[in-house]
Amino acid sequence: MSLPAPLTGVIPPVCTPLGPDGEVDVDSLLRLVDHLVAAGVDGLFLLGSTSEAAFLTDGQRRRVVEAVTGHLGGQLPVLAGAIDMTTPRVLEHIASVTAAGADGVVVISPFYARLGPAETARHFRLAAAASPVPVLAYDLPSAIPTKLSADLVVRLASDGVLAGLKDSSGDLAGFRDVVTGTRHLPGFSALTGSELLVDAALALGGHGAVPGLANVDPEGYVRLDRLCRAGHREEARAVQERLCALYGLVRVGAGRMGAGSSALGAFKTALHLRGVIACPATAEPQVPLSEAEVEEVRRHLLEAGLL
Amino acid sequence: MSLPAPLTGVIPPVCTPLGPDGEVDVDSLLRLVDHLVAAGVDGLFLLGSTSEAAFLTDGQRRRVVEAVTGHLGGQLPVLAGAIDMTTPRVLEHIASVTAAGADGVVVISPFYARLGPAETARHFRLAAAASPVPVLAYDLPSAIPTKLSADLVVRLASDGVLAGLKDSSGDLAGFRDVVTGTRHLPGFSALTGSELLVDAALALGGHGAVPGLANVDPEGYVRLDRLCRAGHREEARAVQERLCALYGLVRVGAGRMGAGSSALGAFKTALHLRGVIACPATAEPQVPLSEAEVEEVRRHLLEAGLL
Amino acid sequence: MSLPAPLTGVIPPVCTPLGPDGEVDVDSLLRLVDHLVAAGVDGLFLLGSTSEAAFLTDGQRRRVVEAVTGHLGGQLPVLAGAIDMTTPRVLEHIASVTAAGADGVVVISPFYARLGPAETARHFRLAAAASPVPVLAYDLPSAIPTKLSADLVVRLASDGVLAGLKDSSGDLAGFRDVVTGTRHLPGFSALTGSELLVDAALALGGHGAVPGLANVDPEGYVRLDRLCRAGHREEARAVQERLCALYGLVRVGAGRMGAGSSALGAFKTALHLRGVIACPATAEPQVPLSEAEVEEVRRHLLEAGLL
Amino acid sequence: MSLPAPLTGVIPPVCTPLGPDGEVDVDSLLRLVDHLVAAGVDGLFLLGSTSEAAFLTDGQRRRVVEAVTGHLGGQLPVLAGAIDMTTPRVLEHIASVTAAGADGVVVISPFYARLGPAETARHFRLAAAASPVPVLAYDLPSAIPTKLSADLVVRLASDGVLAGLKDSSGDLAGFRDVVTGTRHLPGFSALTGSELLVDAALALGGHGAVPGLANVDPEGYVRLDRLCRAGHREEARAVQERLCALYGLVRVGAGRMGAGSSALGAFKTALHLRGVIACPATAEPQVPLSEAEVEEVRRHLLEAGLL
Repeated sequence: MSLPAPLTGVIPPVCTPLGPDGEVDVDSLLRLVDHLVAAGVDGLFLLGSTSEAAFLTDGQRRRVVEAVTGHLGGQLPVLAGAIDMTTPRVLEHIASVTAAGADGVVVISPFYARLGPAETARHFRLAAAASPVPVLAYDLPSAIPTKLSADLVVRLASDGVLAGLKDSSGDLAGFRDVVTGTRHLPGFSALTGSELLVDAALALGGHGAVPGLANVDPEGYVRLDRLCRAGHREEARAVQERLCALYGLVRVGAGRMGAGSSALGAFKTALHLRGVIACPATAEPQVPLSEAEVEEVRRHLLEAGLL
Repeated sequence: MSLPAPLTGVIPPVCTPLGPDGEVDVDSLLRLVDHLVAAGVDGLFLLGSTSEAAFLTDGQRRRVVEAVTGHLGGQLPVLAGAIDMTTPRVLEHIASVTAAGADGVVVISPFYARLGPAETARHFRLAAAASPVPVLAYDLPSAIPTKLSADLVVRLASDGVLAGLKDSSGDLAGFRDVVTGTRHLPGFSALTGSELLVDAALALGGHGAVPGLANVDPEGYVRLDRLCRAGHREEARAVQERLCALYGLVRVGAGRMGAGSSALGAFKTALHLRGVIACPATAEPQVPLSEAEVEEVRRHLLEAGLL
Repeated sequence: MSLPAPLTGVIPPVCTPLGPDGEVDVDSLLRLVDHLVAAGVDGLFLLGSTSEAAFLTDGQRRRVVEAVTGHLGGQLPVLAGAIDMTTPRVLEHIASVTAAGADGVVVISPFYARLGPAETARHFRLAAAASPVPVLAYDLPSAIPTKLSADLVVRLASDGVLAGLKDSSGDLAGFRDVVTGTRHLPGFSALTGSELLVDAALALGGHGAVPGLANVDPEGYVRLDRLCRAGHREEARAVQERLCALYGLVRVGAGRMGAGSSALGAFKTALHLRGVIACPATAEPQVPLSEAEVEEVRRHLLEAGLL
Repeated sequence: MSLPAPLTGVIPPVCTPLGPDGEVDVDSLLRLVDHLVAAGVDGLFLLGSTSEAAFLTDGQRRRVVEAVTGHLGGQLPVLAGAIDMTTPRVLEHIASVTAAGADGVVVISPFYARLGPAETARHFRLAAAASPVPVLAYDLPSAIPTKLSADLVVRLASDGVLAGLKDSSGDLAGFRDVVTGTRHLPGFSALTGSELLVDAALALGGHGAVPGLANVDPEGYVRLDRLCRAGHREEARAVQERLCALYGLVRVGAGRMGAGSSALGAFKTALHLRGVIACPATAEPQVPLSEAEVEEVRRHLLEAGLL
């Protein structure tokens, strides 16, 4: 299917269930997709950071996209990440995920290599030139050392290079600059990657949300999105605050683990406790949650009425 | 061949010559290898940051190692980088480069994914368990957001996980901590990645150097190493200072480009001007040096007596 | 007067007009205060970052507070910053500004000295114990290398140490955590220091705003605040977007100057162009705006209908 | 006395002993000065970071300089820090410490205020213009967010603005650039602030060292300096390695405290255990070492033969 322009609503970054052997558990993956579709989400984002794309081999990445697009049969738009360090490697991922059926690709600024702003712009231009489907930029300065500036996003959007932005920077003022700067481009999708500010991001003109926590509580985020669209701001705020409280589960393993592995471990543990996936394993070298930490995740789910 | 323990002397991180089409120029690569061997270097490091590993596809990476190991026929020890974000992807690279003949592999801490110290340690343990050849750690906090602590390196060395360290952090005090902390491990290789402090690193007990600038002036670094070993400190300092001045060429494109692409562009331009490689192209999305910048590189080479 | 609890509305961080000799221009300062009061602001914040507190000598700081409190005669609540590196120096500033009539003091985490979280907490406890008036914390991670965590703010608020927070971190999710975490404390003031997200900050429960740009357009911010309070969200958004566009003036000198001096120079130039202050000078070693940059500020003011 | 040009040898940054009430303990301060002088140090640096300058009120700072210069009577050159955020405040400190007898002042780049490189240069020019004694720059990027570039130091030195540099950045390659870049200026003093690389810094042409640990073991650093000057490199390395091991005491309280307070607490505890100062108290809000941590400092001193 072709990507809606703009893409709106809730587009969860889908976790990648793994077996105890570290291989993709396709059955669990499809159950997770069904769980999200049943909740009414508006699209799916595969191979993002929440999908553990940084850990998946090229073969595993391909398998994920093929399994999901085959299963969905065009029911919902599917974005796929092409996460790698620089252009030549990213172009290979774009070719692979679009061959496997992705309707849009999500590309991050170059990392590891230390490049300048002109080279970052060139990276996105080359990606768009090579991609048979629309390209969205991914701003994730907690993972890579550079922030994507609103100015650059607006310029690339105006030039037809970027079809959208997934902004996981936490910088809502910068997101606002993108929203107002692309208002004259009716197809541009401004998506927040925040779990905690969806109401605020939509209120200032954002089109949708890509919250990792939507794996755990997709109904919550769909409800939040619908309340925001209907202009029921106070009810939206209450739902958002409930989700903020639930989000506390990502800190269960923090300190002992990193911020990334703590969040991924908590999401997968919650999906396991909710009976959606068969095994909570995260990819190597991430360490699993301890029993006490699993209990704390359970407590969060109980408080949120999700168990 | 099996890796010397410790590995000593000058081990250049070999640039990867590319054609105008972005493909590996194997003829130029082998000419570059011959140029380094003729200068008396003590080993080669393929697929490091200076080799543009972050830009090379998996196919290109394999081709580089196969071409060089086939050409060398065991004359010199060959290290190869297995640079990627996390363990599963790194293990694939280790399998690939060792199948292609690498005598040692160089592994960096996980990046992009935000992990904790225990997970970094686990990453190196899994890499060493899977590798048929010794594993050296790579500390490059300018490329990834984490510094590898001396404590962790010493612990992993004592446990037989790490056979060495390539320290490109610029933190010579931390390097000293590794040197003194591994002195009881006679096979451990403490290598500096600095171009500018080789004399100092060897004086405090380091075993060797992996300077990117040695692509351009391998004789200079070999001479520096031999003077240091012979205890001719004042002459060594003079050679080191000459190399520090030459190193100014990495800043020729700075500002306009990033620190990484500016250095890579300057090294390749210098190799092209010296007649070693056929084309100075760097990988996408790096921008090339301007004509004026090429002239500035030429001036640096002339001043250093290299043209 | 005693500080309202909570403090609500628009509380501009008042610029400190200087003469060409670098001394405080008290006449201009009082004209600026009148300009703010006439616009309907709800309080004033003296000796903050926008007031160039980091540049003012102790004598100048005292003069500013005395002049303003004497002039206002209790009409409006007056906050004053006690900005310095560590506790003993901060306690001296607290004594000085409260003797001069401040109704509340604003204290930042220790900086320069590298302390731990327990020591940051102790700093605020000692400040509150020594202060005759309420203490608000100041979160400004662009100026000092540490972010004040929402957890610590909530804990100190619950213990009666902190009466409020001025959050200039740009991290609206963290601000939300403070707002929800202190909802059970009816007197706590959660104030945003953002120019760009006042509507969003109030919508999620914030009490007021301390925007530097309110020096230039106090009517704009007062109007924005009143629309937010009345629930006129769409009109509020339009006003906020107009102020975001005006905020572009802070980047007029960027590149050539730092982010701090560029903003301070632009605010003062705008106040000078609007006829409020006699001289746009900023404190040493800040460089002044060029003529072309002054013209660009003028253009911003014209576009915003402020000239 | 006038400052030697260049200043060479060991110039300890003198700790500021405090009583349990937080006031300067002048008797202990003068005993500490005698302990350093007796060890053969070549100068003293008052009101640096190790002196807790960031914690001392203006009155305390003045008292420290007056007490020490009065006690020394010109026996040794005395540097004093003028540590504050920006030029106007720094100029006040320069006036105060030079009135109290300092032979040179040490000035850091502006901090807190976010300024550009031209403004940093202007800051040093204004400081030098206002100072009756030579000005040395202080590079301490762990305390303030900016690194002083070698280029700027060399330019200001060439212009006669800077008489020297105290480099506590840990970036020995940058220090080398300053050393070679100022070799044509015979009076310029290139001093390292490192405890761990004094041998390396002197070997590459540095003039002296300002190591905080020299409070605890001044004889060790004087011996190291003399061995380096005499060209006894291997013996110097052994002494340096002994001092590196002793330096482990700064990490005794780390984790629980910050890196700054942990080091300051350890130095003062060691001076107290060695009987030099009456009380190990550090300034507020720093927390004291625990009994177990004091024992660990004692163990370090015993191992180093200092008890």
